[in-house]
Amino acid sequence: MNLPAIVSGRNCLFTLTGRLAEIEDFDLSAVVQPEPLPPIVTAGNGDKQNDREIVSGRNVHTTCLEVTEPEANDEFTGDKDAYMASVLARYRESLMERTKYHLGYPFNLDFDYGALGQLQHFSINNLGDPFIESNYGVHSRQFEVGVLDWFARLWEIEKNEYWGYITNCGTEGNLHGILVGREAFPNGVLYASRESHYSVFKAARMYRMDCEKVDCLISGEIDCADFKAKLLANKDKPAIINVNMGTTVKGAVDDLVLVIQTLEESGFSDDRFYIHCDGALFGLMMPFVKRAPKVITFKKPIGSVSVSGHKFMGCPMPCGVQITRMEHINALSRNVEYLASRDATMMGSRNGHAPIFLWYTLSRKGYKGFQKEVHKCLRNARYLKDRLHDAGISSMLNELSSTVVFERPLDEEFVRRWQLSCQGNIAHVVVMPSVTIEKLDDFLNDLVGKRSTWYQDGEAQPPCIAADVGSENCACASHK
Amino acid sequence: MNLPAIVSGRNCLFTLTGRLAEIEDFDLSAVVQPEPLPPIVTAGNGDKQNDREIVSGRNVHTTCLEVTEPEANDEFTGDKDAYMASVLARYRESLMERTKYHLGYPFNLDFDYGALGQLQHFSINNLGDPFIESNYGVHSRQFEVGVLDWFARLWEIEKNEYWGYITNCGTEGNLHGILVGREAFPNGVLYASRESHYSVFKAARMYRMDCEKVDCLISGEIDCADFKAKLLANKDKPAIINVNMGTTVKGAVDDLVLVIQTLEESGFSDDRFYIHCDGALFGLMMPFVKRAPKVITFKKPIGSVSVSGHKFMGCPMPCGVQITRMEHINALSRNVEYLASRDATMMGSRNGHAPIFLWYTLSRKGYKGFQKEVHKCLRNARYLKDRLHDAGISSMLNELSSTVVFERPLDEEFVRRWQLSCQGNIAHVVVMPSVTIEKLDDFLNDLVGKRSTWYQDGEAQPPCIAADVGSENCACASHK
Repeated sequence: MNLPAIVSGRNCLFTLTGRLAEIEDFDLSAVVQPEPLPPIVTAGNGDKQNDREIVSGRNVHTTCLEVTEPEANDEFTGDKDAYMASVLARYRESLMERTKYHLGYPFNLDFDYGALGQLQHFSINNLGDPFIESNYGVHSRQFEVGVLDWFARLWEIEKNEYWGYITNCGTEGNLHGILVGREAFPNGVLYASRESHYSVFKAARMYRMDCEKVDCLISGEIDCADFKAKLLANKDKPAIINVNMGTTVKGAVDDLVLVIQTLEESGFSDDRFYIHCDGALFGLMMPFVKRAPKVITFKKPIGSVSVSGHKFMGCPMPCGVQITRMEHINALSRNVEYLASRDATMMGSRNGHAPIFLWYTLSRKGYKGFQKEVHKCLRNARYLKDRLHDAGISSMLNELSSTVVFERPLDEEFVRRWQLSCQGNIAHVVVMPSVTIEKLDDFLNDLVGKRSTWYQDGEAQPPCIAADVGSENCACASHK
Repeated sequence: MNLPAIVSGRNCLFTLTGRLAEIEDFDLSAVVQPEPLPPIVTAGNGDKQNDREIVSGRNVHTTCLEVTEPEANDEFTGDKDAYMASVLARYRESLMERTKYHLGYPFNLDFDYGALGQLQHFSINNLGDPFIESNYGVHSRQFEVGVLDWFARLWEIEKNEYWGYITNCGTEGNLHGILVGREAFPNGVLYASRESHYSVFKAARMYRMDCEKVDCLISGEIDCADFKAKLLANKDKPAIINVNMGTTVKGAVDDLVLVIQTLEESGFSDDRFYIHCDGALFGLMMPFVKRAPKVITFKKPIGSVSVSGHKFMGCPMPCGVQITRMEHINALSRNVEYLASRDATMMGSRNGHAPIFLWYTLSRKGYKGFQKEVHKCLRNARYLKDRLHDAGISSMLNELSSTVVFERPLDEEFVRRWQLSCQGNIAHVVVMPSVTIEKLDDFLNDLVGKRSTWYQDGEAQPPCIAADVGSENCACASHK
């Protein structure tokens, strides 16, 4: 095979020879290009957006860190080590900066897993089923099942009645839950509100399922009147329903009780529907909210619940928890050849570190710790909403939610600085445990200050967002 | 919500109060149940096996580590911290032991990522497309694209002609590659040899594709005569083919040249087939084998290649690399609503640590380092095969492979100790860079010693495995 010549772009490094110890005094920007703020994106947030334009050619190739071939004498000179250390130090600095100014994504960035550093030396892999040991010994199933039990208790299902596993992210949970539903009802129609996460519609396409997009209320909740109309139009086919426990953009919680009631009223009995709850963010928070009327529980006729592990809990890498009823998995594993030996997860090899991170956090914080954090988030979200309102900025905060929706800042530089998610004319801040009052004050002061310059000459006007948040929450010229 | 009473099984810990510093002297087994060897599995290896019995009720619940609620005064007493430290110390010990005796899975357990420990404090997430920045700033796309470029060069495709991403594991790569193929040919038939990884057949089921299982030669390679017969039986429909670069059990490499020739001979032109190469293990090794005639290259009409990152390279968590042609991704992102903004990965949130691990390894070792390691593995595999042969034990080693297949040890305790993968009457050892001659000698001495006792009274006979490895490699009573 012909390999192209090895590119060597590290000449500036050769001055470093033998000066490894002085690396901290070295001007890192001479070695590594400073990472620019991400380019302006015309609309949307990348993870969660259905209607963003397709941007082609905005290629990270311009800023990427090439893998460079070691020189023959690197071991002797230490040049390569010095180069790598400088890249990593520079990168770490940018991560610290970016972590400081982060408000838009529902990630709890406040965690301390120092005690787990010792495990990074091991290739921990929970391949296959969490409940069945494989011959590969370097695994962490004992932690994984401990975590699953904790969630089973939270969502009220007995140990011998559930099956579940730690996923790689919320999307994997949705893909799994909907697949379980489809296997239960091969000709079922998938129903999901328009504001559902895009992975739900991706599942429909992947699995070749008929899919009905259901309208939403202003809050972002599923509109059960439209749901009913669509159910009646497909009444001969079983229903597979994705119910949102915290939509991506508005943090809206679908009314599970009303969804089940609508199914019954439309003539769908228990044995003709499957409900998957996408609890991405609020699946963990809601059980701790007093009198939350729509709480997730397996005492209701739901089939599966998924939640992200890196969101409210905080985790260095994305992960999630998926819980379903054992009967569905048993049915699957009897039916299909590829599930022999209960190959019931989406993936084969599975990250064994994530369960240990989750186990560690759950054990340290406990139910009480989470309760305290949930209340703090809801309180801080209310604070942000009130301060925005006082400043005359359109905003909305759903009940049971810590996602504050508000008028999209005019300046994209500002959006990128605070890493806000945007869609059309709205932006949001998701108040996580790592978002303190101080951080919110910094953000508010920055916003109010900058905003006064954006609109000072009267040429531009703050947008009307009544269609997104309702006229009572809109503070535009015609609604205030 | 009613939560069951918090279970407190940590009474033995209370003697620890205030003695955190003495934790190393503490008898850990009093706190944590020692983890037993995994239970005996009747046939197979859990990750890679199609025909293992379904084992229900072998539940890790018996050994799991419960998440315990902190006590009110934990912060003051330090009891909880002591408990957690003891659990982790005990776990670390078992990981070291298990890592030492590991031969059956193709994981390189020999890595040193100490320099990357500093990054564990960050929630690094490459959500969405690797080549398009999202507003979430705590990402590692610059490393990811650097790694992808390295593989693009290895597999001979230009930077502006490929698209790819770092996956969570080999399965995700296969699921992605086959989905790309299906979107290119919606009514295509999926062809894969019987010895393909189970994720290939899982994909067929998930995606509702027609699937033809093609027979294999003794070596484990796809039988192109049978392939041709099956192509001709479906000649009106386009073909999507999974080609194996190292099968799971025998490490067999499908003959890509012959596969393409068979397609042509059966009347399938370039625009009527899509080839996905499952390079799980050998996709990275083969380019370094001198005169490998069947090497992976995008100069041939293939559509995608996937490879695992935690196998030959070694990585604390499973991961993989997926490379496909840009034209397929462009076609996808134009066609489908859910791919707006190029949602072209399987998952939404993506592990940002894995790309940094890979970047670090590739940068340190380089092409030359990998070449050296590949040769060492092939040499050591040959050594193991020869020693088994000398000891009169049936065994086989495919050309271009470091997977040594041999007679399944009679004693399941032995199988579990060395964490061997088994299928029917055969077992295998995958010689990775972490498998030294010393480790192989330990294994061989243990095997030869134990084996003499298994068969000493003449009641049991070593199994005939001619059907699996060919009569020339079988050393059973009738073939030796």
